[in-house]
Amino acid sequence: MASGMSGPFRVGLLGHGTVGSAFAELLAERAGQVEAITGLRPDLVGVLTRSRGDFEDILERSDLIVEVMGGLDPARDYVLRAMAAGRHVVTANKQLLSQHGEELWAAAREHGVQLRFEAAVAGVVPVIRVLQESLAGAPVDRLHGIVNGTTNFILTQMAETGASYKEALAEAQRLGYAEADPTEDVNGKDAAAKMAILARLAFNTPVHIDQVRCEGIEHLTADDMAYARELGLGLKLIGTAERIDGGLSVRVHPAFLYGAHPLASVSGPFNAVTIESSTITEITLSGPGAGGPQTASAVLGDVISAMIPPASTPPATDHLEIVSDVESAFYLHLEVADRPGVLADLAWRLAAHEVSVARLVQHETGEGTAALHVVLHECRSGELGAALAEIAQLPETRQRPTALPVISDRGVPGLGWA
Amino acid sequence: MASGMSGPFRVGLLGHGTVGSAFAELLAERAGQVEAITGLRPDLVGVLTRSRGDFEDILERSDLIVEVMGGLDPARDYVLRAMAAGRHVVTANKQLLSQHGEELWAAAREHGVQLRFEAAVAGVVPVIRVLQESLAGAPVDRLHGIVNGTTNFILTQMAETGASYKEALAEAQRLGYAEADPTEDVNGKDAAAKMAILARLAFNTPVHIDQVRCEGIEHLTADDMAYARELGLGLKLIGTAERIDGGLSVRVHPAFLYGAHPLASVSGPFNAVTIESSTITEITLSGPGAGGPQTASAVLGDVISAMIPPASTPPATDHLEIVSDVESAFYLHLEVADRPGVLADLAWRLAAHEVSVARLVQHETGEGTAALHVVLHECRSGELGAALAEIAQLPETRQRPTALPVISDRGVPGLGWA
Repeated sequence: MASGMSGPFRVGLLGHGTVGSAFAELLAERAGQVEAITGLRPDLVGVLTRSRGDFEDILERSDLIVEVMGGLDPARDYVLRAMAAGRHVVTANKQLLSQHGEELWAAAREHGVQLRFEAAVAGVVPVIRVLQESLAGAPVDRLHGIVNGTTNFILTQMAETGASYKEALAEAQRLGYAEADPTEDVNGKDAAAKMAILARLAFNTPVHIDQVRCEGIEHLTADDMAYARELGLGLKLIGTAERIDGGLSVRVHPAFLYGAHPLASVSGPFNAVTIESSTITEITLSGPGAGGPQTASAVLGDVISAMIPPASTPPATDHLEIVSDVESAFYLHLEVADRPGVLADLAWRLAAHEVSVARLVQHETGEGTAALHVVLHECRSGELGAALAEIAQLPETRQRPTALPVISDRGVPGLGWA
Repeated sequence: MASGMSGPFRVGLLGHGTVGSAFAELLAERAGQVEAITGLRPDLVGVLTRSRGDFEDILERSDLIVEVMGGLDPARDYVLRAMAAGRHVVTANKQLLSQHGEELWAAAREHGVQLRFEAAVAGVVPVIRVLQESLAGAPVDRLHGIVNGTTNFILTQMAETGASYKEALAEAQRLGYAEADPTEDVNGKDAAAKMAILARLAFNTPVHIDQVRCEGIEHLTADDMAYARELGLGLKLIGTAERIDGGLSVRVHPAFLYGAHPLASVSGPFNAVTIESSTITEITLSGPGAGGPQTASAVLGDVISAMIPPASTPPATDHLEIVSDVESAFYLHLEVADRPGVLADLAWRLAAHEVSVARLVQHETGEGTAALHVVLHECRSGELGAALAEIAQLPETRQRPTALPVISDRGVPGLGWA
């Protein structure tokens, strides 16, 4: 094993597609931070693509191999040879693990190396680490997952716009959420591979992708979505793994969700997994399930973990000033005299501090007083504070104004509110 | 360091309140599973309470110390002495870390031991591990958290029932979600301690609880909730940590959330954290933020991690049969001849297989055909399949019936739908 070495930590990369090239870029960008955490500077020593690079040569010069080429052949052979040579391996290859997982995990144990694969399921959503580490002591009863972003995007489109399956698929392809050939996504096979891996970890039992019952979304209609809404239900492609009478069921199929289920609000290309255990009730993890930079970030998290023994918290590397003036949208509640000119006066005092109104509800509260409930556009809290201090002094102000921040979503496609 | 020892792995426990006693129970219950994962059987060798046990004696006989006594004194002294003696420490003590974190983390590095503290923030929600490990390579831009279950329960009650703050607090106390003296929860100080810890990890910069700006929920009114609803917003106690112009702002305050924000749907006593990074967009983690068994489960996850170097996937310990007959509620779509007796015939064939109808919507589609959209109570999928096979053969059936599972939430208090 190479982990005791001093000097740079040498990373060999197999595959240079979307994830591979994003990983190479991220590794270069974050090398300094990785060195601050681990004490070793990571260095990309070689890249194998279809047309260039030599596997033996890259292996020879690496401490760790990142495999993001996908597919079974030659990925399986390369990963086995890397581990036999004492190298840690980080892979994003769900096909490989859902078909040859037991062989690969046994090889990792035999050779005393780490085989990490966070990026193989749900991209940067840290479900692998949480199952293997956080929940190592909690017996899992059931796991539900939205583990394919393409289908979740399509179903979100159908639900929100009334589009047909074909129209929604075309929109997903236009936005890059679906491949030109979407077969493996829409027939549920991609999700089935991921569920095989999750079920293996959650239930400590071997699960092969061929044991996962699987139904896709190709036959869903706008009608199904309409009736789901009529019944107060959401419709998603759900992977389920659960204990049943001493056995295990693993399956992928479109399913209806009650509105309060944690997966019901997971929209657009996002992934999420809910893990149920009698000890902990349930936890839910959600985030982007795909994308080059996101998946590369999951790969880098694994690389860092493989570089160091489990974290003692490293010394603080930054010494940021703790500041109090922040930028935010705000909600205001004002109680003012209900007479002409008051609203104009307030708006002017806000505007003088570059604070502007997005939405306003006014109503009379009796006794000549008006209550104003206002949502502001983004502004500096210091400026708003100054404006409110002025407003508090006005003779027409009846009670100290209150201001609370308004937190918006991040405008992820398919999530509505911009 | 004791981690190279053979024989049992000896755990000393400081504190035997709600979390301590739940941990002792869980450790005994899960000792076999922990041994399967780590190769070592954990053994509780001593418990220190206010009235019994001797710290020096417990320390002497332990490989790892679990500190769940809370407070600063004598917890700080005990944790420092345990680490100086080469013992790993797992703690759930947010006060201690938010006030003396740098000293404790430095001591852990100096003595080459692990100091783990998942249970100090958001109970079993694995936000500490995710920040320290999964996102070690991703620069965090901003973090929002609902990190106090008491206040989230109170605000959920106010929003859902129109209750006043006092009424909702009384209900929280009745259900055990609030202490008899709820001050530290409702004034935001508990959340502030947790945000100091999260901000330290997310931004690699020292943060003391006194640097966290803090506002509680005591002054919120049913009126505020009503206007939030009118404006389409949720109202939560939110902790925020974000980079601002090369500085860092850390704060806790009631805030409004747009409906599509991942934290907007976090209800009742649950906790959740959303971590934003330009590399990964965002991920959200949610689950129970308190409770003895839940917090004890987070402590046990840390103990297991401290016992072993980072996981190679252990051999499968179970060999569950992969089964296909599952129990679920279902949605049915049937197209049948629109004439008297057909509905009775269908209901009878379902009932013969112990399948019963919960909700039904019927409408004519023209040409003498009726569409039935049906939600069933829980039944065995094998029985339902048999019933549908019979129904498919009936002369009045116009197209192959389709069935999809319906997934309900788990009926967590405050989450609505039972």
